[in-house]
Amino acid sequence: MRLYRLKRLFVGSPLPTAQQRHERLGKATALAVFASDPLSSVAYATEEILFVLILAGSAALSYSLPIGVGIAALILIVVTSYRQTIRAYPQGGGAYIVAKDNLGVFPSLVAGAALLIDYVLTVAVSVAAGVAAVTSAVPELFPYRVWLCVLAVAGVAVANLRGVRESGKIFAAPTYVFVVSILAMVTWGVGGALFGLLRVTPYAPHAPGLEGIGLFLFLRAFSAGCTALTGVEAVSDGVPAFKPPEAPNARIVMAWLGAISVAMFLGITYLAYDLGIVPGGNETVVSKIARQLFGTGPVYFEIQAVTMLILLLAANTSFADFPRLSFFLARDRFIPRQFATQGDRLVFSNGILILAGVASLLLVVFLGDTHALLPLYAIGVFVSFTVSQSGMVRRWLRLKEEGWWWRVWFNGVGALVTGIVMLTLAVTKFTEGAWIVVVLIPTLVIGFLVVHRHYAEVAGQLSLEGMAPPLPMTNTVLVVVGDLHRGVVKAIQYAQTLSPSPKAVYVETDPDRTRRLEEKWGTWGLGVPLIVLTSPYRSLLGPLLEYMDHLQENENHVVTIVIPEFIPARWWQLGLHNQTALLIKGAMLFRKNVIVTDVPYLLRH
Amino acid sequence: MRLYRLKRLFVGSPLPTAQQRHERLGKATALAVFASDPLSSVAYATEEILFVLILAGSAALSYSLPIGVGIAALILIVVTSYRQTIRAYPQGGGAYIVAKDNLGVFPSLVAGAALLIDYVLTVAVSVAAGVAAVTSAVPELFPYRVWLCVLAVAGVAVANLRGVRESGKIFAAPTYVFVVSILAMVTWGVGGALFGLLRVTPYAPHAPGLEGIGLFLFLRAFSAGCTALTGVEAVSDGVPAFKPPEAPNARIVMAWLGAISVAMFLGITYLAYDLGIVPGGNETVVSKIARQLFGTGPVYFEIQAVTMLILLLAANTSFADFPRLSFFLARDRFIPRQFATQGDRLVFSNGILILAGVASLLLVVFLGDTHALLPLYAIGVFVSFTVSQSGMVRRWLRLKEEGWWWRVWFNGVGALVTGIVMLTLAVTKFTEGAWIVVVLIPTLVIGFLVVHRHYAEVAGQLSLEGMAPPLPMTNTVLVVVGDLHRGVVKAIQYAQTLSPSPKAVYVETDPDRTRRLEEKWGTWGLGVPLIVLTSPYRSLLGPLLEYMDHLQENENHVVTIVIPEFIPARWWQLGLHNQTALLIKGAMLFRKNVIVTDVPYLLRH
Repeated sequence: MRLYRLKRLFVGSPLPTAQQRHERLGKATALAVFASDPLSSVAYATEEILFVLILAGSAALSYSLPIGVGIAALILIVVTSYRQTIRAYPQGGGAYIVAKDNLGVFPSLVAGAALLIDYVLTVAVSVAAGVAAVTSAVPELFPYRVWLCVLAVAGVAVANLRGVRESGKIFAAPTYVFVVSILAMVTWGVGGALFGLLRVTPYAPHAPGLEGIGLFLFLRAFSAGCTALTGVEAVSDGVPAFKPPEAPNARIVMAWLGAISVAMFLGITYLAYDLGIVPGGNETVVSKIARQLFGTGPVYFEIQAVTMLILLLAANTSFADFPRLSFFLARDRFIPRQFATQGDRLVFSNGILILAGVASLLLVVFLGDTHALLPLYAIGVFVSFTVSQSGMVRRWLRLKEEGWWWRVWFNGVGALVTGIVMLTLAVTKFTEGAWIVVVLIPTLVIGFLVVHRHYAEVAGQLSLEGMAPPLPMTNTVLVVVGDLHRGVVKAIQYAQTLSPSPKAVYVETDPDRTRRLEEKWGTWGLGVPLIVLTSPYRSLLGPLLEYMDHLQENENHVVTIVIPEFIPARWWQLGLHNQTALLIKGAMLFRKNVIVTDVPYLLRH
Repeated sequence: MRLYRLKRLFVGSPLPTAQQRHERLGKATALAVFASDPLSSVAYATEEILFVLILAGSAALSYSLPIGVGIAALILIVVTSYRQTIRAYPQGGGAYIVAKDNLGVFPSLVAGAALLIDYVLTVAVSVAAGVAAVTSAVPELFPYRVWLCVLAVAGVAVANLRGVRESGKIFAAPTYVFVVSILAMVTWGVGGALFGLLRVTPYAPHAPGLEGIGLFLFLRAFSAGCTALTGVEAVSDGVPAFKPPEAPNARIVMAWLGAISVAMFLGITYLAYDLGIVPGGNETVVSKIARQLFGTGPVYFEIQAVTMLILLLAANTSFADFPRLSFFLARDRFIPRQFATQGDRLVFSNGILILAGVASLLLVVFLGDTHALLPLYAIGVFVSFTVSQSGMVRRWLRLKEEGWWWRVWFNGVGALVTGIVMLTLAVTKFTEGAWIVVVLIPTLVIGFLVVHRHYAEVAGQLSLEGMAPPLPMTNTVLVVVGDLHRGVVKAIQYAQTLSPSPKAVYVETDPDRTRRLEEKWGTWGLGVPLIVLTSPYRSLLGPLLEYMDHLQENENHVVTIVIPEFIPARWWQLGLHNQTALLIKGAMLFRKNVIVTDVPYLLRH
C-alpha cells in the first residue's frame, strides 16, 4: 500500500478510459512538437564532423564545409521522399507500417528493430548532449554528469508516466526560442564576419581533392554528421495528430522542418569554420561558438539553457515513439503482450519503463559521453529510411495511383541514397560501436519471430475448436501439515469446505515431533485423518510426491494440496519463515492435475 | 529439473539422516584441524606490523621486534585463559554459549554478532592472503586476483555444501607441511645469520623509547599484529570433537597450538628484521623472505604453495564455525529459522551460502586486497575474547568450584588484557575501516532482538491455547475469467468440484469483447452463471475488490478465487504472458478470508 501511495504521488490518480482525448495540432504547434528531435541534433552533428576531421590534423577541419553541404542535400532528399509517404499514409506511415503493408513481415521487423534501437539512442544521446550543454556552461558539474543524465531520464519518464497531455503547449515555447536563438546567433556571427566586426580566425584553406585526409576519413566524417537527420521521419508517423486537412498540413510542416533544419545546421557548421573552433576539452562546439561571439554573459547562458531544454524535449519524443511502436509490435504479437496494455494514466507504461531503463543503462555504461554514444546512433534510423522508402517504391509500382511514375522517382532516389548512407555508416563506424547495432538488429528480429511463434502455438493449444465436452472432474483434497497451530486449524476447516473427505499429510523427520503432533491431533484435527510419511533424507517433497503418485488415477481427477501459511504483518518478516508453500508450488508447477492452494492466516502486529 | 541436476553434479546426492556420524579426532589430527586458522595468520601478521611502521620511515621498522614480543605474550595469555574455558565447558564453550550461560542474553548477542562478522572476515582475509601468496610467486596472475579470490571462495563453499566428511585427513598433511616448512625456514635463516653464512642487512637499530614514532603509531602497529590471534579460540568451540578424555586432550592441543604459533610468528618477525625486508610492491613479506633465503627455486615455490593451501584451509574453518554459530542463533530464534535447517547433505546450507556470498562481496569491494581488509579484522574476535573471559570470571565467582580463586585470576587477566587490546584496535584502526565493524555489531544485535520479538509474537498469535472449538466454515467460489479457452474451461470444471454453485466473474474493459465472450459462454460455461463487472479505469482489481466487499459476511465465511492460468513449456516464456494470477494474489495477500487458487493448464512444446 505504501508503494501504491508513492506511485500516486509521482504518477497521479488513475484516469478513466472515457477521458482519452485526441489533441489536434495546428501547423505552428505541430512544427514545434515534431521539430525538437531533428533540430536538436545541430547541438552535436557539427561537433561530430569536426571530431573526425581533427584526426587528420586541424588543417582538415575546413572539410566540414563540403560535408555540411552534402548532409544538407541529404536532408532535402529525405524530406521530399517523406512528403510522398505522408500523402499515401494520412493515417500515419511509420516505417514499420509502410514496410508491413508493402514489403511483408520480415522487412517490417527489421525496420521495427532498427527503430526501437534508435529511439533508445535518441534518449541517451539527447540527454547526454543536454547535460553536456549544462556542463559546458558550469564545468563544476562535469564530474556529476552521469548522475545528471540518469536524473534527466527519470524526470522525463515520470512526466510521460503521468501522461503528457499538454504536449503542444510544453513544446511550442522552447522550440521556437531555440530556433530563434540559434538563427539569431548564426546571423550575428555571419553578419559580423562579413562586415568585419568580429575577430575571425577561419580554418586554414584546405588542400583541393581528398588527398589531404583520405576517402575513408572523409566518409567517416560524413557519417558522423548524418546524426543531423535523426527524427526527420517523426512527422510521417504523426499525421493523424494534425488538424484537418491532415495530410496537406503535415506536408507543409515537413517542408518547413527541412528548411529550418538545413539553415541551422549549415549556419552552425559555417560559424565553426569561420571562428576556427577546434572540438574537445569537455566543452561543446555550440558552447564555444556562443562564448566566442557573446562572451560568458547572459546571451551565452540563454543559448546553453535553451539547448539543454530542446534536447530534453527531443528525448521526450522518443517516449511517445517507442511505446507507440512497441504497441504495434505487441498487437501483432512480436513482443510480449504487456506492451499493448495501457496503464491507469492511459499511457503505455511498460514501454516507457523499458525505454527509460535501457537508456539509463547506456548512459551509465558510456559514462554520459555523447561522443562515445554517437557511433551507435543514426544507423537504425537510416535502416528505417531505406526500408520505408523502398516500401513506398513498391507501393507506387503496385497501385499505379495518379502521378505514380514520378513519385516512384522521388522515393526511389530517397531509398537509394539512404541505403548507400546506411552502408557507409555501418562500415565507417563499425569498429567504434556500430557493430553493436549491426549485431543487435538481427538478434531482435529473431527474438520477435520466436515470440510470435510462441503466441501462435499457445493460441492453437488453448483453442476450444474441436474440443469434446468435458467430463465431470473429481478432486482429492490433501492438507499438508508440519505442526498444529491456529493457521493449520483454519486450513483443515477450509479443506472441509472443499471436499467431504479431506486428508491431512505429515512428513516425519523426527519421531518425537510426530508423537507430539498425534497427541494434539485428537483435539484439533476436526476428525480429518492424519497420514504420516517418513522421510529418510529430511526432504519434504520426496515423500509427498511419492504419496501423490499413488493417488493420480485418470485425466479427470485432480489433487488439491492445501497448505496452511501464516502471513506476517510486515513484508520483511516474510524472510523469517520457511517458504514451504512456495517450495511445494515450485515443485508442482509443471505437474499435471495438481492444484496448490495456500490458506493464509494473517498475523496482527 | 535442470537446476536440480546441476546441483547434484556439484553437491552430490542427498544423504540420509542416519548417516550423520561423529568423527572423533586424535590429538595430532585435532591440532591440524584447529591450527590452520591461527597459524595461517603468520602469513600476514608480521607484514601488517611493518606496513604501519614504515609510515614513520624505514628506521622505525625495527620496532617490529618489541611489538612481536608483546603479541607473543598476548597469545600466551589468551591460550592460558582459554585452557580454563575448556576445563569448564567440555561440551564446547564458544563465546556465545559461555556468555549466554554466565552473563545473559545481551552480552551473548554482542559476542555472536562480533564472531559472525569475524568469520566472514576470516574467509575474506585468508583467501585474499592465499591469492597474494600465489600472485607473489606468479606476478602475471596479479590482475586476476579478484577473480581468483571469488573462485577460491566458491570452491571452498562447494566443498562444504557437499559436507567435508574427511576433514581430519584433508587438514593433517598441509598443516604439518606448513609448520615444518616455516619452522625450517626460520631455523635456516636464523642459523645462517648467526653463523655468518647469509648476507644479512638488518634494519637500522631503532632509537630508544617511543620518541621515534609516537605512541599512536606504535599502538597501531601492535593492533595490526593482533590479527595473529584470530582463530585461537577455535579449540574451545570444538572440544566434543576430541577423542576421550576430551577436555584434557583439548587442553594439551591448546598448549601446543600456542607454542607453535608463538614460535612461527616470532621467527618470521625476526627474519624480516634480520633480512631488512621492506613491505610493499605486490609481494608478500613471507615471499620476500623465502626468495631472499632460497632464491626463486623449488624451495621458494613449495613455501608459497603450502602458504596458499593453509590459508584456504583457514578460510574453510569459518565454513564450519559460521554455520554452527548461525545454528545456535537460529535455534534460539535470533536469526531466521532457515539457518537451523540441515540441507540434504547434512550441512547447514544456508549458513554456508550466506558466508560465501558476503565474503565474496567483501573481496570484490576491497579488490581482493589483504591490506585493505585487515583493519576490519580481529576486532570481532577480541570482542568475543573479552566477553567470553568475562563470562568465565563470573562463572568462577558464582560456582566457586575447586581452585576457583586462582582460576579467576587467569581468566580475569585474560579479560582485562583482551578488553584493552579490543579498545586499542577499535581506536587505532577506526578511520581505516574498523568503524564499519563498530557500527555493524550493534546493528546486528538490534536485528537479532527484532527477529526474536517477531518469533515470540507469532508463536503467541498461533498458539491453540484458549482457542474455542471452531465453527464450520462456508465458502463462496468465484472463477475470474478474462477470455474463454481450454484453460478457462478446466478452471470452471475445477470450481465445480469445490462448490455446488460457483460463479464466474468477468471484468469488462471493452463491450465488444464482452459480447463475444457471452456468445461462447452458452456452450462452454458449463452452466456456471457469468457476472460482468464494468471497469471505467481499465483496472482488473478495483471492480473485483468492490464486488467481493458485498460477499464478505462473517468470520467463518471465506471467498475462494479460482484463476485459470496457463503454464508455458519453458520458463522464459512466462514473461510473455500477463501475470494476472500473481497480480490478484498480491492484492489479496493481506485481505482476510480470501483464498486465491490458480488452476494451471500445462502447455506442451
